[in-house]
Amino acid sequence: MLIIGEKINATRKPIAAALADRNATAIERIASEQVAAGADRIDVNGGDADASREADNLVWLIQCVHNACDAEVCVDTARPDAARRALLVAGEQAMLNSISLESDRIESMLPVVEEFGCCVVALLMSDAGFPRDVDSRLRNAEALIDKLTGVGRSVDEIFIDPCLFPVAAGAETWGQALKAIRAIRRQWPEVHLVGGISNVSHGLPKRRFINIAATVQAIEAGMDSAIIDPGETDMMAMIRAAEALAGRDEMCMGYVKAASEGRLG
Amino acid sequence: MLIIGEKINATRKPIAAALADRNATAIERIASEQVAAGADRIDVNGGDADASREADNLVWLIQCVHNACDAEVCVDTARPDAARRALLVAGEQAMLNSISLESDRIESMLPVVEEFGCCVVALLMSDAGFPRDVDSRLRNAEALIDKLTGVGRSVDEIFIDPCLFPVAAGAETWGQALKAIRAIRRQWPEVHLVGGISNVSHGLPKRRFINIAATVQAIEAGMDSAIIDPGETDMMAMIRAAEALAGRDEMCMGYVKAASEGRLG
Repeated sequence: MLIIGEKINATRKPIAAALADRNATAIERIASEQVAAGADRIDVNGGDADASREADNLVWLIQCVHNACDAEVCVDTARPDAARRALLVAGEQAMLNSISLESDRIESMLPVVEEFGCCVVALLMSDAGFPRDVDSRLRNAEALIDKLTGVGRSVDEIFIDPCLFPVAAGAETWGQALKAIRAIRRQWPEVHLVGGISNVSHGLPKRRFINIAATVQAIEAGMDSAIIDPGETDMMAMIRAAEALAGRDEMCMGYVKAASEGRLG
Repeated sequence: MLIIGEKINATRKPIAAALADRNATAIERIASEQVAAGADRIDVNGGDADASREADNLVWLIQCVHNACDAEVCVDTARPDAARRALLVAGEQAMLNSISLESDRIESMLPVVEEFGCCVVALLMSDAGFPRDVDSRLRNAEALIDKLTGVGRSVDEIFIDPCLFPVAAGAETWGQALKAIRAIRRQWPEVHLVGGISNVSHGLPKRRFINIAATVQAIEAGMDSAIIDPGETDMMAMIRAAEALAGRDEMCMGYVKAASEGRLG
């Protein structure tokens, strides 16, 4: 399970404040804490009301992360110019978050993926909107994988986000998403599947129970990566439990080790 | 989801002590607490080192439960004489826990099921031992359902326990169990599926994370009943979350109501 720490995101107030003040200590501390809590990568989002500042924000955030830890970054932007500037400093193993099948997004971002040869998060929405059933998700996944392998990415460098919707929107919502995850996993055993799980609990109280239950079920269905706050210890413990159940943790030794080191809360 | 409260079990020290002293107040309090926490039924187990006392124990426990609450009991014994005595006082809606396909068990318990016409937990073990793969579980389920419908039970009065094993015993253990749950649910849409989930975490530390993750996945696969301690608030909250995700909770209103009443912790 690849854990991508989500906290360094400029839509969060403490990050926006640290960005405004160029408070490197604050960003470095959050990067270190996420790695200590189990993050394999650190997502960096430098969105700004003044779009011209996003690239500078990203470059500065990446430098902070590099100062603080060895984890690779995940460059989180929809703007190709900002993505280019960020990927220039982010290192060869950096990842781009994200591309989609919408024509403006694919036309502007696919050349960036080709130029930097990076791993990429691929969202399944297209000009037709969000895919809600299994077939449209499979069609969009196939189209995106075709495009991305066409510019030199291998299937295992692609992180499909299957587009998860609020369960409060309808009884079939989550069942369709799980079926899509299973179908994608079956059709492309090497592709990665990453979920924007927190969307599932949108509009509900006590969201963490829904988020954790959805994650535990998605892992069983084939999800192998998550963009989350690794400081949420119950979520991390349940991810480790789900990995043990999935047989991806030989003899449950990872789970036992995490428990003995006090990392299961 | 039918929640069967597991706490009134003589293998637990406080229950054995209350049984020895015939401390009705203690048993009645535990019954009431389980119902308040969300139990639909109350399991009663009166096992005793002196087997001749089990029937008396069960009758007394059932009277305590009846004094304390309106929940039906689940008579938990492998002894036909004790089951008969208990079912005589337990009421028409009582349930029997359990029968299996082992010849001594089926020969001795099937007449009890026929006589009382009760709902019954059916364990999938047979004279060949515990079923470990999907096919042997399906075969045993079919044989048990045949036997039980042969004495007048309808499929929806049967609670299949698919025999869950410790995940620490092997990487495929839990995957096989989930596949079996899905296969049984597909073949008999009306049968109930109930799990001895705590066995899954046997031998591991921090068992509750494994138990909760397994329950959340089993509900997605088709489990619709659990024998648990409803006082474990995280487990209950995650069961409600899994039901919301499964679309069994229209517009998530049950989840929202539980949250607003402070029942999600």
